[in-house]
Amino acid sequence: MTRVGLFPATFDPVHNGHIDIAERAAKLVDKLVIGVAINAGKGPLFSLEERADMLREETAHLRKHTEIEVLPYQGLTTTFAREVGASVILRGLRAVADFEFEFQMTVMNQQLDRDIETVFMMADPRHLAIASRLVKEIATLGGDVSNFVSPAVKARLLQKVGRS
Amino acid sequence: MTRVGLFPATFDPVHNGHIDIAERAAKLVDKLVIGVAINAGKGPLFSLEERADMLREETAHLRKHTEIEVLPYQGLTTTFAREVGASVILRGLRAVADFEFEFQMTVMNQQLDRDIETVFMMADPRHLAIASRLVKEIATLGGDVSNFVSPAVKARLLQKVGRS
Amino acid sequence: MTRVGLFPATFDPVHNGHIDIAERAAKLVDKLVIGVAINAGKGPLFSLEERADMLREETAHLRKHTEIEVLPYQGLTTTFAREVGASVILRGLRAVADFEFEFQMTVMNQQLDRDIETVFMMADPRHLAIASRLVKEIATLGGDVSNFVSPAVKARLLQKVGRS
Amino acid sequence: MTRVGLFPATFDPVHNGHIDIAERAAKLVDKLVIGVAINAGKGPLFSLEERADMLREETAHLRKHTEIEVLPYQGLTTTFAREVGASVILRGLRAVADFEFEFQMTVMNQQLDRDIETVFMMADPRHLAIASRLVKEIATLGGDVSNFVSPAVKARLLQKVGRS
Amino acid sequence: MTRVGLFPATFDPVHNGHIDIAERAAKLVDKLVIGVAINAGKGPLFSLEERADMLREETAHLRKHTEIEVLPYQGLTTTFAREVGASVILRGLRAVADFEFEFQMTVMNQQLDRDIETVFMMADPRHLAIASRLVKEIATLGGDVSNFVSPAVKARLLQKVGRS
Amino acid sequence: MTRVGLFPATFDPVHNGHIDIAERAAKLVDKLVIGVAINAGKGPLFSLEERADMLREETAHLRKHTEIEVLPYQGLTTTFAREVGASVILRGLRAVADFEFEFQMTVMNQQLDRDIETVFMMADPRHLAIASRLVKEIATLGGDVSNFVSPAVKARLLQKVGRS
Repeated sequence: MTRVGLFPATFDPVHNGHIDIAERAAKLVDKLVIGVAINAGKGPLFSLEERADMLREETAHLRKHTEIEVLPYQGLTTTFAREVGASVILRGLRAVADFEFEFQMTVMNQQLDRDIETVFMMADPRHLAIASRLVKEIATLGGDVSNFVSPAVKARLLQKVGRS
Repeated sequence: MTRVGLFPATFDPVHNGHIDIAERAAKLVDKLVIGVAINAGKGPLFSLEERADMLREETAHLRKHTEIEVLPYQGLTTTFAREVGASVILRGLRAVADFEFEFQMTVMNQQLDRDIETVFMMADPRHLAIASRLVKEIATLGGDVSNFVSPAVKARLLQKVGRS
Repeated sequence: MTRVGLFPATFDPVHNGHIDIAERAAKLVDKLVIGVAINAGKGPLFSLEERADMLREETAHLRKHTEIEVLPYQGLTTTFAREVGASVILRGLRAVADFEFEFQMTVMNQQLDRDIETVFMMADPRHLAIASRLVKEIATLGGDVSNFVSPAVKARLLQKVGRS
Repeated sequence: MTRVGLFPATFDPVHNGHIDIAERAAKLVDKLVIGVAINAGKGPLFSLEERADMLREETAHLRKHTEIEVLPYQGLTTTFAREVGASVILRGLRAVADFEFEFQMTVMNQQLDRDIETVFMMADPRHLAIASRLVKEIATLGGDVSNFVSPAVKARLLQKVGRS
Repeated sequence: MTRVGLFPATFDPVHNGHIDIAERAAKLVDKLVIGVAINAGKGPLFSLEERADMLREETAHLRKHTEIEVLPYQGLTTTFAREVGASVILRGLRAVADFEFEFQMTVMNQQLDRDIETVFMMADPRHLAIASRLVKEIATLGGDVSNFVSPAVKARLLQKVGRS
Repeated sequence: MTRVGLFPATFDPVHNGHIDIAERAAKLVDKLVIGVAINAGKGPLFSLEERADMLREETAHLRKHTEIEVLPYQGLTTTFAREVGASVILRGLRAVADFEFEFQMTVMNQQLDRDIETVFMMADPRHLAIASRLVKEIATLGGDVSNFVSPAVKARLLQKVGRS
């Protein structure tokens, strides 16, 4: 049986914590779909296409061992999981606030589709405090984001916030 | 002495978790006032009148045992409690995040009016993950909300989000 | 209908935070039973009789307005609630750790007896950090516990730990 | 590639929350090893053999779809995972307190053996408040544990605590 | 060596909890810079100048013992700390939610500038539930904020929200 | 004015997280007293003398910049702080559970002696999951503790648990 996993997030932009979870998730499944949520509500800095492009570049090294697909999606995450044949959703957990939000989402998702399981991986301590929102704020204020994102993402980010 | 309790919330819309708390609160007091907060800040989906109407329908079965009144209000909750003769405010607790928010509100309210007590009931585990915000989001994205709200509320919700 | 409430704890010894909850609980019911748990597990410092005696003294002022009964008990709290005719268990909440423990106990208790409701009151900020365990430890180490317990309890405590 | 997962716990005794996690874990791997920790520290009620016996009975229905092995172990969980060929440890999460404990254990385990991944599943809300410690306490005090364990485990539990 | 500390916040407006932290922070350093964050994002009620004015009045009594400077700033807090020669950032902690936010900020700040240390003081229980956001809301709704801010700040607040 | 700080803990044994806090604490004060709590309750693995010896070795490098004194103590921490002339107690924070425990202790300590301030530093993410209890457990079970303690402490630990 081929196990397909879905790692869904907004990835605005992808940071080192996301890459760590993708790398670890890739070992748990035969194929990993990285779902880029459109998330109109949050007003993303990068377009959906830009976010997917960056993700494809940053996860290229994982393709040697696992099939990786980066796909944008809108609508319910469980519906998208079914569409791509994923039986498991994979997410990272950094903090108590994450835990409570994810608990609520997972229970809701289980009520919507009991066949889709959600599993969590604890964030690596080095990435515990990284959040896309903070990375964007630091870049905007002129701080150095080299510890949080790859050189390629940093370059795009500085360009986007008018600091390059 | 007649004990009047106040169960205040935005109820946008009322869901199964609210009904559970209302049912349990109704046993603790002689009269239960359900206060529908106007809450202009959050930009509710349903009008104040619609929210009150749904609540009246959903709590009709409680009227056999306890006097129930559904009333909209604006302003401070403690002021409204005094106006309706309530000596106790009743609220549900689902999560740690709830606990911290409610702790802060309760302490603030006690400083505003020491005669009004606030008591909490733990949410039933079946309703632990239900939140009006998520119910609206799921309905908007085309998910089935039958597990979270009554058939009547579901019908109104689907109509409101243009899915009926 | 006469509403009977049960406020159960180990009370080893009763401290200002307990008294605050008892005072507020007394306003919510027609009769308040204060249940002193035997709690052999924790190895209490004071005997059951001593703990009940102190509680009777410390809650004497509440008897003007509400009927108060101090009773020791062992076994399940829900069973004891039924025995004394209580329909509601009242407890204080101080912290997130309390919340999680009490949530678990409440859900367990509801599974054992669905007719017994449990309600919580937020601890007054002045009593937020008081715990019988810490009060005993401070008294043992020679610290002044005047801010945490009544003069009568303090006297008994100092005698018990050999500091009077 | 055959994926082997390890679900380690003390299982003293196995309860409905454990079975739910085992069922969901069994879908994520090709073979599931259920590791019964000796845990001399906690002073278990049931012997290691009894705990493993109960687990074998309670997970018999999973063997149709997934290979299940119940094995006692002592020593480091990561060492045992390696011995049984497991690349992933599976655990349930019920509460914030669980999250913090499991976060610490996972980070420690990753430092001991970076090849072993740990993943978490959110407890089903129906099992959120179940803990072996509480189940034993309720049985000892004469409460009905039918909602928390299977009839077979209940029978053994009542016998063990002298209530049958 | 002269130790300079920075106490940064939005102070919109300064409340009793802020003053308590400032008083305690002033004892830990030789000079205390109170940094008023511009915080365009939150849409402050008071202008930067008004917020700094109120702070200067409310901290005048601290100047007898410690050098105090109130300065507005924008940009990264670590950059501002360096500009004013501060080696330590001082912050108050009220709740678990605060703890998680501050943990994330501190780790981010340490990655930006390892020479700047951040230390925390636990809020006094009397100020545990005070937040500028709630104070503004209560004043807007006509509640009495005398327990939360000084008479001078109260007067300005009532004028600002059109209640004086 | 000479500022003396007290860093109190059980240090059974000192680990990398302790050293990190000691290094950062040493920058905040003119003299740092490291107080080794006797802590009969916990039943320490190392004698008080051994624990103090290890600490003196592990903090030798800090003596170049700051006066460091390692002293055992029993009794109340605030009393010991006064005895050594410390005006500030310094502690590390790793997790929400730490935060709640430390909040309670700090408030208790402030009631015992209002002149002693307590400040907290967030643990470095690399040390977030290290606890003396876990380090001892891993060493006992034959795991490698090189990532958690210094080579010297590791050698003593292995000898103590009979693994050298």
